[in-house]
Amino acid sequence: MEQLTIKTTKNIEFIDITEKIKRIVKQSGTSSGYCIVYVPHTTAAVTVNENADKDVQVDILRKLSELVPLKSDYQHLEGNSAAHIKSSVIGVSKTFLVENGNLILGRWQGIFFCEFDGARERKVLISVH
Amino acid sequence: MEQLTIKTTKNIEFIDITEKIKRIVKQSGTSSGYCIVYVPHTTAAVTVNENADKDVQVDILRKLSELVPLKSDYQHLEGNSAAHIKSSVIGVSKTFLVENGNLILGRWQGIFFCEFDGARERKVLISVH
Amino acid sequence: MEQLTIKTTKNIEFIDITEKIKRIVKQSGTSSGYCIVYVPHTTAAVTVNENADKDVQVDILRKLSELVPLKSDYQHLEGNSAAHIKSSVIGVSKTFLVENGNLILGRWQGIFFCEFDGARERKVLISVH
Repeated sequence: MEQLTIKTTKNIEFIDITEKIKRIVKQSGTSSGYCIVYVPHTTAAVTVNENADKDVQVDILRKLSELVPLKSDYQHLEGNSAAHIKSSVIGVSKTFLVENGNLILGRWQGIFFCEFDGARERKVLISVH
Repeated sequence: MEQLTIKTTKNIEFIDITEKIKRIVKQSGTSSGYCIVYVPHTTAAVTVNENADKDVQVDILRKLSELVPLKSDYQHLEGNSAAHIKSSVIGVSKTFLVENGNLILGRWQGIFFCEFDGARERKVLISVH
Repeated sequence: MEQLTIKTTKNIEFIDITEKIKRIVKQSGTSSGYCIVYVPHTTAAVTVNENADKDVQVDILRKLSELVPLKSDYQHLEGNSAAHIKSSVIGVSKTFLVENGNLILGRWQGIFFCEFDGARERKVLISVH
């Protein structure tokens, strides 16, 4: 199991971790199998989407915050309920395929760590089999 | 493959299954690998979130029901379209990591069975590799 | 790794791929394990839901489009931001269980390729272990 440490710099942002995951898959020596990316937090997530145009990330985060606003009639007193809700909607675990020693991604796909309650230091766990 | 039977008692609720999953992982004897948790229903789901403060669950379920209300102009005649929609948004399958014989979870993470159309008897399938 | 090619015919639709995935699992010869279904696109997804009544699909797609409308104040200039957002909400990767050589699904569960920006030719990748 490998571990990435990520320092987020904003309250809400996507961090592109595609190259780091690709490198971990390469270094694992696994020829054919799969790779699990797991976020051990309850106010963050991991997703796959376009990493060519930054505006895609902007639009995803904006629409999520419109649907699940930071302030609402939440009961949880820490003030980060919106982040918890977004974490469950996007999800903390994603499984990828590995073929010929490489992580398989579609042409436009990148892997993003999703910070919903930063800035903080975060972890991402990666396991290749 | 292991199977949990869960009796839900409300129309919409989270049931904490963390300890049950941890026990199944321990008993599997798997040292290093992964654990798939699968819900074989179309009006339920499985998610990961904070299990320290119960209000987090309250806020997630409330916001989901605000966005996807029980009554709307749905076509499906059984009256549980909201539950089907929530099931696809949260998802019925999650993969976890196993290291040193233990299920890996973040400090605040718990695993919840999500009932969206109860009360009913439900199943959760667990496979450790 | 197996690959399905899907020709979608609408801008937004669900395509039932359950039987195709079942056949791939059978043909793999895997007795007990799991099956990863991966969509290598950023404006599509894969989900599990009821395939008995077509109105369930109608309701899911309609509510998603109500929450994430095609037109909004999106920054991404290609006009398909709604499709990117839906892709991250539903997800591009799902893991299923395999027992006794068969894909495990609940009684009412089917697997759907989710087109959010069609019509197009799409791919679905399937790996059985």
